Amino acid sequence: MKILLIGGNGTIGRKVTSHLSKKHDLVIAGRSSGDVQVDIVNSQSIEAMFKTVGKVDAVACIAGEAKWAAFEELSEEDFYIGLRSKLMGQVNLVRIGQKHIHPGGSFTLTTGILADHPVEFTASAAMVNGGIHSFVKAVSLELKNSIRINVVSSGLVEDAVDKYEAYFPGHNPIPMEKVINGYVKSIEGKGNGEIIRMYDNS
Amino acid sequence: MKILLIGGNGTIGRKVTSHLSKKHDLVIAGRSSGDVQVDIVNSQSIEAMFKTVGKVDAVACIAGEAKWAAFEELSEEDFYIGLRSKLMGQVNLVRIGQKHIHPGGSFTLTTGILADHPVEFTASAAMVNGGIHSFVKAVSLELKNSIRINVVSSGLVEDAVDKYEAYFPGHNPIPMEKVINGYVKSIEGKGNGEIIRMYDNS
Repeated sequence: MKILLIGGNGTIGRKVTSHLSKKHDLVIAGRSSGDVQVDIVNSQSIEAMFKTVGKVDAVACIAGEAKWAAFEELSEEDFYIGLRSKLMGQVNLVRIGQKHIHPGGSFTLTTGILADHPVEFTASAAMVNGGIHSFVKAVSLELKNSIRINVVSSGLVEDAVDKYEAYFPGHNPIPMEKVINGYVKSIEGKGNGEIIRMYDNS
Repeated sequence: MKILLIGGNGTIGRKVTSHLSKKHDLVIAGRSSGDVQVDIVNSQSIEAMFKTVGKVDAVACIAGEAKWAAFEELSEEDFYIGLRSKLMGQVNLVRIGQKHIHPGGSFTLTTGILADHPVEFTASAAMVNGGIHSFVKAVSLELKNSIRINVVSSGLVEDAVDKYEAYFPGHNPIPMEKVINGYVKSIEGKGNGEIIRMYDNS
Protein backbone atom coordinates (compact mmCIF):
# COMPACT_ATOMS: atom_id res chain seq x y z
CA MET A 1 0.00 0.00 0.00
CA LYS A 2 1.06 3.57 -0.62
CA ILE A 3 0.48 5.36 2.69
CA LEU A 4 0.68 9.10 3.32
CA LEU A 5 1.58 9.67 6.97
CA ILE A 6 1.21 13.23 8.22
CA GLY A 7 3.22 13.83 11.37
CA GLY A 8 5.51 10.88 10.90
CA ASN A 9 8.29 12.45 12.96
CA GLY A 10 6.49 12.94 16.29
CA THR A 11 6.63 10.70 19.38
CA ILE A 12 4.00 8.31 18.05
CA GLY A 13 4.62 9.06 14.37
CA ARG A 14 8.22 7.83 14.40
CA LYS A 15 7.24 4.44 15.82
CA VAL A 16 4.29 4.05 13.44
CA THR A 17 6.52 4.98 10.51
CA SER A 18 9.16 2.48 11.53
CA HIS A 19 6.59 -0.32 11.82
CA LEU A 20 4.53 0.41 8.70
CA SER A 21 7.56 0.95 6.46
CA LYS A 22 8.45 -2.77 6.76
CA LYS A 23 5.42 -3.70 4.66
CA HIS A 24 4.28 -0.55 2.90
CA ASP A 25 5.44 2.31 0.72
CA LEU A 26 5.38 5.35 3.03
CA VAL A 27 5.35 9.04 2.19
CA ILE A 28 6.04 11.12 5.30
CA ALA A 29 4.63 14.65 5.50
CA GLY A 30 5.69 17.17 8.15
CA ARG A 31 5.79 20.88 8.79
CA SER A 32 9.54 21.10 8.30
CA SER A 33 10.75 17.53 7.83
CA GLY A 34 9.75 14.42 5.88
CA ASP A 35 9.32 13.75 2.15
CA VAL A 36 6.81 16.54 1.61
CA GLN A 37 5.93 19.64 3.64
CA VAL A 38 2.45 20.46 4.91
CA ASP A 39 0.88 22.76 7.46
CA ILE A 40 -2.52 21.18 8.20
CA VAL A 41 -3.87 24.52 9.48
CA ASN A 42 -3.75 25.71 5.87
CA SER A 43 -6.11 24.08 3.33
CA GLN A 44 -4.02 25.27 0.40
CA SER A 45 -1.01 23.55 1.91
CA ILE A 46 -3.07 20.33 2.17
CA GLU A 47 -4.17 20.64 -1.49
CA ALA A 48 -0.55 21.18 -2.55
CA MET A 49 0.61 18.15 -0.57
CA PHE A 50 -1.93 15.84 -2.24
CA LYS A 51 -0.99 17.19 -5.68
CA THR A 52 2.69 16.47 -4.99
CA VAL A 53 2.12 13.00 -3.54
CA GLY A 54 -0.51 11.77 -6.02
CA LYS A 55 -3.12 9.13 -5.26
CA VAL A 56 -2.60 6.98 -2.18
CA ASP A 57 -4.23 3.94 -0.56
CA ALA A 58 -4.24 5.28 2.97
CA VAL A 59 -3.86 8.61 4.76
CA ALA A 60 -2.91 8.61 8.44
CA CYS A 61 -2.64 11.81 10.46
CA ILE A 62 -0.71 11.93 13.72
CA ALA A 63 -0.46 15.72 13.79
CA GLY A 64 -2.34 18.69 15.18
CA GLU A 65 -2.14 20.76 18.32
CA ALA A 66 -4.39 22.37 20.90
CA LYS A 67 -3.60 24.71 23.78
CA TRP A 68 -3.36 23.27 27.30
CA ALA A 69 -4.09 25.82 30.03
CA ALA A 70 -6.36 26.45 33.01
CA PHE A 71 -9.90 27.15 31.79
CA GLU A 72 -9.85 30.56 33.51
CA GLU A 73 -6.84 31.51 31.40
CA LEU A 74 -8.01 30.22 28.00
CA SER A 75 -9.05 33.08 25.72
CA GLU A 76 -11.49 32.67 22.84
CA GLU A 77 -8.50 32.80 20.48
CA ASP A 78 -6.72 30.07 22.47
CA PHE A 79 -9.63 27.71 21.72
CA TYR A 80 -9.29 28.47 18.01
CA ILE A 81 -5.69 27.16 18.02
CA GLY A 82 -7.06 23.64 18.51
CA LEU A 83 -10.08 24.21 16.28
CA ARG A 84 -7.92 25.31 13.33
CA SER A 85 -5.16 22.73 13.86
CA LYS A 86 -6.13 19.38 15.39
CA LEU A 87 -9.85 19.64 14.58
CA MET A 88 -10.25 21.38 11.21
CA GLY A 89 -6.75 20.33 10.11
CA GLN A 90 -7.87 16.70 10.28
CA VAL A 91 -11.36 17.47 8.88
CA ASN A 92 -9.74 19.25 5.93
CA LEU A 93 -7.41 16.29 5.32
CA VAL A 94 -10.54 14.17 4.80
CA ARG A 95 -12.52 16.86 2.96
CA ILE A 96 -9.70 17.44 0.46
CA GLY A 97 -8.15 13.97 0.60
CA GLN A 98 -11.33 12.09 -0.42
CA LYS A 99 -10.52 13.04 -4.02
CA HIS A 100 -6.93 11.81 -3.76
CA ILE A 101 -7.44 8.35 -2.33
CA HIS A 102 -7.97 5.07 -4.21
CA PRO A 103 -11.32 3.26 -3.93
CA GLY A 104 -11.29 1.06 -0.83
CA GLY A 105 -8.66 3.27 0.81
CA SER A 106 -8.74 4.59 4.34
CA PHE A 107 -8.26 7.61 6.56
CA THR A 108 -6.89 7.23 10.09
CA LEU A 109 -7.07 10.25 12.37
CA THR A 110 -5.65 10.72 15.86
CA THR A 111 -7.20 11.91 19.11
CA GLY A 112 -6.57 10.81 22.70
CA ILE A 113 -8.02 9.63 25.99
CA LEU A 114 -8.98 13.21 26.93
CA ALA A 115 -12.10 13.00 24.76
CA ASP A 116 -13.58 10.50 27.23
CA HIS A 117 -11.45 11.03 30.35
CA PRO A 118 -10.26 14.63 30.48
CA VAL A 119 -7.76 15.94 33.02
CA GLU A 120 -7.16 19.46 34.33
CA PHE A 121 -6.15 22.11 31.76
CA THR A 122 -7.77 20.28 28.82
CA ALA A 123 -11.05 22.12 28.20
CA SER A 124 -9.80 22.95 24.70
CA ALA A 125 -7.81 19.77 23.98
CA ALA A 126 -10.59 17.43 25.17
CA MET A 127 -13.19 19.37 23.15
CA VAL A 128 -11.20 19.00 19.95
CA ASN A 129 -10.75 15.26 20.50
CA GLY A 130 -14.46 14.74 21.20
CA GLY A 131 -15.36 16.68 18.07
CA ILE A 132 -13.15 14.42 15.95
CA HIS A 133 -14.77 11.29 17.41
CA SER A 134 -18.27 12.38 16.40
CA PHE A 135 -17.00 13.66 13.04
CA VAL A 136 -15.48 10.26 12.23
CA LYS A 137 -18.69 8.42 13.13
CA ALA A 138 -20.76 10.84 11.02
CA VAL A 139 -18.53 11.03 7.96
CA SER A 140 -18.09 7.24 7.86
CA LEU A 141 -21.75 7.11 6.77
CA GLU A 142 -21.03 9.24 3.71
CA LEU A 143 -17.60 8.54 2.22
CA LYS A 144 -17.88 7.22 -1.36
CA ASN A 145 -15.96 4.46 -3.21
CA SER A 146 -15.75 2.21 -0.13
CA ILE A 147 -13.33 4.62 1.51
CA ARG A 148 -13.15 3.98 5.26
CA ILE A 149 -12.30 6.25 8.18
CA ASN A 150 -11.33 5.50 11.78
CA VAL A 151 -9.63 7.33 14.62
CA VAL A 152 -7.02 6.07 17.08
CA SER A 153 -7.46 7.42 20.60
CA SER A 154 -4.45 6.60 22.77
CA GLY A 155 -3.91 6.92 26.47
CA LEU A 156 -0.68 8.34 27.88
CA VAL A 157 1.94 6.58 25.76
CA GLU A 158 5.08 5.09 27.28
CA ASP A 159 7.39 7.30 25.25
CA ALA A 160 5.69 10.47 26.56
CA VAL A 161 5.53 9.51 30.24
CA ASP A 162 8.45 11.71 31.32
CA LYS A 163 6.91 14.78 29.72
CA TYR A 164 3.26 14.28 30.68
CA GLU A 165 2.82 11.97 33.68
CA ALA A 166 2.25 14.86 36.10
CA TYR A 167 -0.84 15.82 34.06
CA PHE A 168 -2.27 12.27 34.13
CA PRO A 169 -2.33 11.14 37.76
CA GLY A 170 -2.82 7.40 38.05
CA HIS A 171 -2.90 6.73 34.32
CA ASN A 172 -1.22 3.50 33.23
CA PRO A 173 1.23 4.17 30.39
CA ILE A 174 0.32 2.48 27.10
CA PRO A 175 3.04 0.41 25.38
CA MET A 176 3.99 1.85 22.00
CA GLU A 177 3.33 -1.53 20.29
CA LYS A 178 -0.31 -1.27 21.36
CA VAL A 179 -0.65 2.22 19.93
CA ILE A 180 1.03 1.18 16.68
CA ASN A 181 -1.50 -1.65 16.42
CA GLY A 182 -4.33 0.91 16.46
CA TYR A 183 -3.00 2.38 13.22
CA VAL A 184 -2.40 -1.08 11.73
CA LYS A 185 -5.95 -2.12 12.62
CA SER A 186 -7.41 0.93 10.92
CA ILE A 187 -5.23 0.77 7.81
CA GLU A 188 -5.03 -2.99 7.19
CA GLY A 189 -8.39 -3.96 8.74
CA LYS A 190 -11.86 -3.40 7.36
CA GLY A 191 -13.43 -1.30 10.13
CA ASN A 192 -15.23 1.96 9.37
CA GLY A 193 -16.36 4.71 11.71
CA GLU A 194 -14.51 3.14 14.63
CA ILE A 195 -13.01 4.93 17.59
CA ILE A 196 -10.07 2.64 18.33
CA ARG A 197 -9.46 3.27 22.03
CA MET A 198 -5.93 2.24 22.98
CA TYR A 199 -6.06 2.37 26.76
CA ASP A 200 -7.40 0.21 29.54
CA ASN A 201 -7.60 2.75 32.31
CA SER A 202 -9.57 5.92 32.88
CA MET B 1 -33.68 30.68 41.41
CA LYS B 2 -32.90 33.36 38.86
CA ILE B 3 -32.34 31.50 35.59
CA LEU B 4 -31.00 32.97 32.35
CA LEU B 5 -32.33 30.92 29.45
CA ILE B 6 -30.72 31.59 26.09
CA GLY B 7 -32.91 30.41 23.22
CA GLY B 8 -36.10 30.31 25.23
CA ASN B 9 -38.27 30.76 22.16
CA GLY B 10 -37.23 27.72 20.11
CA THR B 11 -39.02 24.36 19.81
CA ILE B 12 -37.50 23.01 23.02
CA GLY B 13 -36.90 26.42 24.62
CA ARG B 14 -40.59 27.37 24.73
CA LYS B 15 -41.52 24.20 26.58
CA VAL B 16 -38.60 24.46 29.01
CA THR B 17 -39.48 28.12 29.67
CA SER B 18 -43.11 27.27 30.30
CA HIS B 19 -42.17 24.55 32.81
CA LEU B 20 -39.37 26.35 34.67
CA SER B 21 -41.29 29.64 34.99
CA LYS B 22 -43.76 27.96 37.38
CA LYS B 23 -41.08 27.74 40.07
CA HIS B 24 -38.29 30.10 39.05
CA ASP B 25 -37.57 33.67 38.01
CA LEU B 26 -36.69 33.41 34.31
CA VAL B 27 -34.85 35.84 32.07
CA ILE B 28 -35.22 34.86 28.41
CA ALA B 29 -32.48 35.82 25.96
CA GLY B 30 -32.91 35.56 22.21
CA ARG B 31 -31.48 36.96 19.00
CA SER B 32 -34.53 39.10 18.32
CA SER B 33 -37.08 38.20 21.00
CA GLY B 34 -37.11 37.69 24.77
CA ASP B 35 -36.22 39.95 27.69
CA VAL B 36 -32.68 40.61 26.50
CA GLN B 37 -31.01 40.24 23.10
CA VAL B 38 -27.91 38.18 22.46
CA ASP B 39 -26.07 36.72 19.49
CA ILE B 40 -23.98 33.90 20.97
CA VAL B 41 -21.62 34.00 17.96
CA ASN B 42 -20.40 37.34 19.30
CA SER B 43 -18.51 37.40 22.62
CA GLN B 44 -19.16 41.11 23.10
CA SER B 45 -22.87 40.46 22.79
CA ILE B 46 -22.56 37.76 25.49
CA GLU B 47 -20.66 40.17 27.77
CA ALA B 48 -23.34 42.83 27.24
CA MET B 49 -26.12 40.34 28.03
CA PHE B 50 -24.55 39.33 31.34
CA LYS B 51 -24.03 43.00 32.29
CA THR B 52 -27.70 43.73 31.57
CA VAL B 53 -29.03 40.67 33.39
CA GLY B 54 -26.75 40.79 36.45
CA LYS B 55 -25.79 37.75 38.54
CA VAL B 56 -27.87 34.60 38.11
CA ASP B 57 -28.13 31.18 39.73
CA ALA B 58 -28.33 29.19 36.52
CA VAL B 59 -27.59 29.65 32.83
CA ALA B 60 -29.23 27.32 30.32
CA CYS B 61 -28.49 27.51 26.60
CA ILE B 62 -30.84 25.97 24.04
CA ALA B 63 -29.40 27.91 21.12
CA GLY B 64 -26.77 27.51 18.43
CA GLU B 65 -26.72 26.29 14.88
CA ALA B 66 -24.63 24.15 12.55
CA LYS B 67 -24.92 23.50 8.82
CA TRP B 68 -26.53 20.26 7.67
CA ALA B 69 -25.37 19.13 4.22
CA ALA B 70 -23.80 16.22 2.39
CA PHE B 71 -20.13 15.92 3.40
CA GLU B 72 -19.06 16.34 -0.24
CA GLU B 73 -20.80 19.72 -0.29
CA LEU B 74 -19.58 21.11 3.04
CA SER B 75 -16.91 23.78 2.54
CA GLU B 76 -14.34 24.66 5.19
CA GLU B 77 -16.36 27.81 5.90
CA ASP B 78 -19.55 25.76 6.33
CA PHE B 79 -17.88 23.88 9.20
CA TYR B 80 -17.04 27.18 10.86
CA ILE B 81 -20.76 28.10 11.05
CA GLY B 82 -21.22 25.40 13.68
CA LEU B 83 -17.84 26.02 15.30
CA ARG B 84 -18.58 29.71 15.85
CA SER B 85 -22.25 29.26 16.85
CA LYS B 86 -23.22 26.04 18.62
CA LEU B 87 -19.68 25.13 19.75
CA MET B 88 -17.82 28.35 20.65
CA GLY B 89 -21.09 30.18 21.35
CA GLN B 90 -21.76 27.76 24.20
CA VAL B 91 -18.08 27.66 25.27
CA ASN B 92 -18.05 31.47 25.43
CA LEU B 93 -21.24 31.49 27.52
CA VAL B 94 -19.34 29.44 30.11
CA ARG B 95 -16.03 31.28 29.69
CA ILE B 96 -17.67 34.69 30.20
CA GLY B 97 -20.58 33.54 32.37
CA GLN B 98 -18.43 31.98 35.09
CA LYS B 99 -17.90 35.51 36.46
CA HIS B 100 -21.63 36.27 36.44
CA ILE B 101 -23.02 33.26 38.25
CA HIS B 102 -23.58 32.83 41.98
CA PRO B 103 -21.56 30.23 43.93
CA GLY B 104 -23.23 26.85 43.63
CA GLY B 105 -24.89 27.89 40.36
CA SER B 106 -25.01 25.85 37.18
CA PHE B 107 -24.59 25.89 33.43
CA THR B 108 -26.72 23.65 31.21
CA LEU B 109 -25.74 23.34 27.56
CA THR B 110 -27.55 21.60 24.71
CA THR B 111 -26.39 19.07 22.13
CA GLY B 112 -28.23 16.12 20.58
CA ILE B 113 -28.20 12.44 19.74
CA LEU B 114 -25.98 13.08 16.68
CA ALA B 115 -22.89 13.24 18.89
CA ASP B 116 -23.24 9.49 19.54
CA HIS B 117 -25.55 8.35 16.73
CA PRO B 118 -25.03 10.55 13.68
CA VAL B 119 -27.20 10.40 10.56
CA GLU B 120 -26.46 11.43 6.98
CA PHE B 121 -25.59 15.11 6.37
CA THR B 122 -24.35 15.70 9.93
CA ALA B 123 -20.55 15.62 9.65
CA SER B 124 -20.50 19.20 10.95
CA ALA B 125 -23.48 19.04 13.34
CA ALA B 126 -22.34 15.79 14.96
CA MET B 127 -18.79 17.11 15.33
CA VAL B 128 -19.96 20.20 17.18
CA ASN B 129 -22.14 18.14 19.55
CA GLY B 130 -19.29 15.72 20.31
CA GLY B 131 -16.96 18.63 21.01
CA ILE B 132 -19.41 20.07 23.54
CA HIS B 133 -19.70 16.72 25.33
CA SER B 134 -15.96 16.47 25.92
CA PHE B 135 -15.75 20.19 26.78
CA VAL B 136 -18.39 19.78 29.49
CA LYS B 137 -16.61 16.79 31.01
CA ALA B 138 -13.28 18.64 30.99
CA VAL B 139 -14.46 22.02 32.26
CA SER B 140 -16.49 20.41 35.06
CA LEU B 141 -13.12 19.55 36.66
CA GLU B 142 -12.13 23.21 36.81
CA LEU B 143 -15.08 25.51 37.52
CA LYS B 144 -14.65 27.40 40.81
CA ASN B 145 -17.13 28.25 43.60
CA SER B 146 -18.98 24.92 43.32
CA ILE B 147 -20.38 25.96 39.95
CA ARG B 148 -21.65 22.92 38.04
CA ILE B 149 -22.03 22.22 34.33
CA ASN B 150 -24.00 19.57 32.42
CA VAL B 151 -25.30 19.10 28.91
CA VAL B 152 -28.67 17.79 27.74
CA SER B 153 -28.47 15.61 24.62
CA SER B 154 -31.93 14.91 23.23
CA GLY B 155 -33.09 12.53 20.56
CA LEU B 156 -35.57 13.61 17.90
CA VAL B 157 -38.15 15.48 19.96
CA GLU B 158 -41.88 14.97 19.43
CA ASP B 159 -42.46 18.60 18.52
CA ALA B 160 -39.88 18.45 15.71
CA VAL B 161 -40.97 15.14 14.16
CA ASP B 162 -42.78 16.72 11.19
CA LYS B 163 -39.73 18.75 10.26
CA TYR B 164 -36.98 16.18 10.84
CA GLU B 165 -38.29 12.60 10.76
CA ALA B 166 -37.04 11.98 7.22
CA TYR B 167 -33.48 12.61 8.47
CA PHE B 168 -33.83 10.18 11.41
CA PRO B 169 -35.07 6.86 9.99
CA GLY B 170 -36.36 4.59 12.72
CA HIS B 171 -35.76 6.99 15.58
CA ASN B 172 -38.40 6.96 18.31
CA PRO B 173 -39.60 10.50 19.02
CA ILE B 174 -38.85 11.72 22.56
CA PRO B 175 -41.75 13.18 24.58
CA MET B 176 -41.19 16.84 25.40
CA GLU B 177 -41.73 16.17 29.13
CA LYS B 178 -38.70 13.89 29.11
CA VAL B 179 -36.54 16.54 27.43
CA ILE B 180 -37.73 19.21 29.88
CA ASN B 181 -36.72 16.89 32.72
CA GLY B 182 -33.17 16.87 31.40
CA TYR B 183 -32.94 20.61 32.03
CA VAL B 184 -34.67 20.30 35.42
CA LYS B 185 -32.23 17.55 36.43
CA SER B 186 -29.23 19.68 35.52
CA ILE B 187 -30.52 22.91 37.12
CA GLU B 188 -32.21 21.60 40.26
CA GLY B 189 -30.07 18.48 40.79
CA LYS B 190 -26.49 18.26 41.99
CA GLY B 191 -24.82 16.53 39.03
CA ASN B 192 -21.65 17.90 37.47
CA GLY B 193 -19.95 17.03 34.18
CA GLU B 194 -22.90 14.88 33.13
CA ILE B 195 -24.06 14.19 29.60
CA ILE B 196 -27.81 13.80 30.20
CA ARG B 197 -28.87 11.62 27.29
CA MET B 198 -32.61 11.96 26.69
CA TYR B 199 -33.27 9.14 24.25
CA ASP B 200 -33.67 5.40 24.45
CA ASN B 201 -32.98 4.46 20.87
CA SER B 202 -29.95 4.66 18.66
